[in-house]
Amino acid sequence: MFSYTIVGTGAVGGYYGARLAKAGATVRFLARSDYQAIKDNGLTVDSIAGNFTLNPVEVYRDSADIPESDVIAIALKTTANGELPKLLAPLVKPGTVILVMQNGLGMESDIQEAFPLSVVTGALCYICARKEGPGKIVHQDKGSVTVGALTASLDPASPHRAALAGIASDFAKSGVPAEVSDSLGTSRWKKLLWNVPFNGLSVALDCDTREILAEPSSRRMAIRLMEEVARGAAACGFPLEKGSIERMVGYTETMTPYEPSMKLDWDAGRPMEIEALYRAPVRAARSAGVELGAIASLGDLLEFMEAKKNS
Amino acid sequence: MFSYTIVGTGAVGGYYGARLAKAGATVRFLARSDYQAIKDNGLTVDSIAGNFTLNPVEVYRDSADIPESDVIAIALKTTANGELPKLLAPLVKPGTVILVMQNGLGMESDIQEAFPLSVVTGALCYICARKEGPGKIVHQDKGSVTVGALTASLDPASPHRAALAGIASDFAKSGVPAEVSDSLGTSRWKKLLWNVPFNGLSVALDCDTREILAEPSSRRMAIRLMEEVARGAAACGFPLEKGSIERMVGYTETMTPYEPSMKLDWDAGRPMEIEALYRAPVRAARSAGVELGAIASLGDLLEFMEAKKNS
Repeated sequence: MFSYTIVGTGAVGGYYGARLAKAGATVRFLARSDYQAIKDNGLTVDSIAGNFTLNPVEVYRDSADIPESDVIAIALKTTANGELPKLLAPLVKPGTVILVMQNGLGMESDIQEAFPLSVVTGALCYICARKEGPGKIVHQDKGSVTVGALTASLDPASPHRAALAGIASDFAKSGVPAEVSDSLGTSRWKKLLWNVPFNGLSVALDCDTREILAEPSSRRMAIRLMEEVARGAAACGFPLEKGSIERMVGYTETMTPYEPSMKLDWDAGRPMEIEALYRAPVRAARSAGVELGAIASLGDLLEFMEAKKNS
Repeated sequence: MFSYTIVGTGAVGGYYGARLAKAGATVRFLARSDYQAIKDNGLTVDSIAGNFTLNPVEVYRDSADIPESDVIAIALKTTANGELPKLLAPLVKPGTVILVMQNGLGMESDIQEAFPLSVVTGALCYICARKEGPGKIVHQDKGSVTVGALTASLDPASPHRAALAGIASDFAKSGVPAEVSDSLGTSRWKKLLWNVPFNGLSVALDCDTREILAEPSSRRMAIRLMEEVARGAAACGFPLEKGSIERMVGYTETMTPYEPSMKLDWDAGRPMEIEALYRAPVRAARSAGVELGAIASLGDLLEFMEAKKNS
């Protein structure tokens, strides 16, 4: 198995990192506010697939102290991405694999630009999970991962291919259903198909996924947002499969009613991922000549709410 | 001057009807809940152009009792338009002029369909006014009117032309700046340029016109909605003049900060004009092949708010 450094020990980093460690991988966690709690009490995962605690945990407060790992997995909120170049600098060597486990669009190219010699990959985490407290992760539903590489090269000899195969295999060994995508772009847009409607609407309408789909007006809003995601994806050269929207609605209807991460961020007074989930897709589609009016409006509405809350 | 029956004695019907009556026109008002107060105390207009009271007022509780008038002016909320065929039946004879003084789209063709022999016209009321109580109208700002006819015919001998010229002249004699539009369709879409952003956003964001334009995020939302109105107008064959959006923003910035009628309706628990202001333009544009995603989303958001309030 690869060795991993997990940057950010929230719901996503904590859950997937703990699974990899439990399966035998060397996993180093970077935590800041939660460092002491994790050091003292380990990482607890309350999971629908069975609870477990990882203790001791190889946890660090400062990225400069972390030994070199094969894979640097980024599991911070995108609202902290401004700090990434500084945080990652001590961790990334030429050839280091970076795995962006965030929602949104455009993060991989920013990172590739900051670390031109790294092997940049991304992971789409289809999971309902939340951090209940420092080092306490609750895994409520789903849990699979799709990994893909920034460069579109399908050359089996490329370092990207090797990285993806290794990561997917490590996840699979850890009990995490994992698949390799031939197009990270398509996979990112496909994930946006869920994130764009359900994150923003849960905040704007103050409700969970079940309520969004139950009320006709909000269901229409969700589907319109999905249609715009599909239009943006196609304009950017990543057309989604026919039936993707219907399948994503159906997938969401099988979920335990869920408050998406943006709702939890909003309720807790943390900044929302407006840039990565709303502005970046709108910009990408616009540069391909397509206006995504409903997505842009929802992004503006969230920004308005945030500004009003902070004023 | 024409004789007028004003159906609905709220802010718009009360203001313009009182002005016409003050200038000497025969004006009959239909009022229901406010009938007794107007009968007893008349119609009071607190206006930036000078306060006045009309007393006695020719006011009726039942449209069946109203003598025949040249012009039937409809100044109800569009949310009551389902009642119009019944309300208007006793008032409309072949050749009667109907003047739709409502916001929105599509009301004139519904009325033409219900009364095929009437001469259907519409008025765009550029006014900041509200009803403070039964028979008490406050005129805060602006006050002009644009009138146009449903049929596009510009034949000077048509009854529509004669009606528009007479109505505009009556308004002018009453101190109401009035102009005749050669395209009611263009004028209706131009009015939507104001109504679509400011009515809905004032409810969704809980703020007045000044606040909407002051905050960058809500200003962007307003301008995006205006851009969609302009796109819908063009698709429907009523292209707005270049610079219309900039002028409408400028016009609004010269206004006294104002809570649009939809905000007053919402705050008072009355139904909102979602159908005429949001659904009808979206449908019209869609039938011309253009999706108005931001407008449709705002309409859905308002419907969601209404459903939640009433649940």
